[in-house]
Amino acid sequence: MIGRLNHVAIAVPDLARATARYRDQLGARVGEPQALPEHGVTVVFVDTGNSKVELLEPLGEASPITAFLEKNPAGGMHHICFEVDDIEASARRLVETGARILGDGTPRIGAHGNPVLFLHPKDFDGTLIELEEVPA
Amino acid sequence: MIGRLNHVAIAVPDLARATARYRDQLGARVGEPQALPEHGVTVVFVDTGNSKVELLEPLGEASPITAFLEKNPAGGMHHICFEVDDIEASARRLVETGARILGDGTPRIGAHGNPVLFLHPKDFDGTLIELEEVPA
Repeated sequence: MIGRLNHVAIAVPDLARATARYRDQLGARVGEPQALPEHGVTVVFVDTGNSKVELLEPLGEASPITAFLEKNPAGGMHHICFEVDDIEASARRLVETGARILGDGTPRIGAHGNPVLFLHPKDFDGTLIELEEVPA
Repeated sequence: MIGRLNHVAIAVPDLARATARYRDQLGARVGEPQALPEHGVTVVFVDTGNSKVELLEPLGEASPITAFLEKNPAGGMHHICFEVDDIEASARRLVETGARILGDGTPRIGAHGNPVLFLHPKDFDGTLIELEEVPA
């Protein structure tokens, strides 16, 4: 079912500083900040060639990463995203095997414009897992 | 400097249960458990095609992930590993720019038999970063 590791998301308190660390200290290829107000984050993509790191800073009042940063003020790894080719089929299999999908239990459109869902971290060893449907 | 995202490591309290979740619920390709007593972990590799997830369970008295699991009993994302082609040059650049290398500050042989180093999470937004020298 799951395919490629699409990205690892890291919540950061200061996106400019985090971007500078990846660019100047780690010598990574980093993009420009992109504000995604409908997702409550500003994101910078770090291109590792085979995958991506997404540096996320809260944007707006209802950011989904605000609570995480309150608990982890220095930042930290927030979630990991795997690609699937049929998110509805994936959702059915997961629910049938006892996994909980966050929110109303149905896929929604994610930050890349593709359908996504998030699985309850308690069902996967304390790890927040995103599944993203990526056209083959 | 940094190249491919080599793996994301997830510390888990019960490796057999975590492996079953990735295999049976997420439909991932998982390997056999490998005991690495010199690194204090038993590891299962989850092959995502482009990268890997490493599920880590403590092994022995002095496991480097025991303290993490005491703080996070359900488990959680422990570190992220990027490949570099010259770890000594990477170490020099990082130290020159103010980053701290854990341990005695010099690379050591990691779980894959290659030289590795770990960077202080406080210098990288709460994220424990491993660099691994992978021959080109």
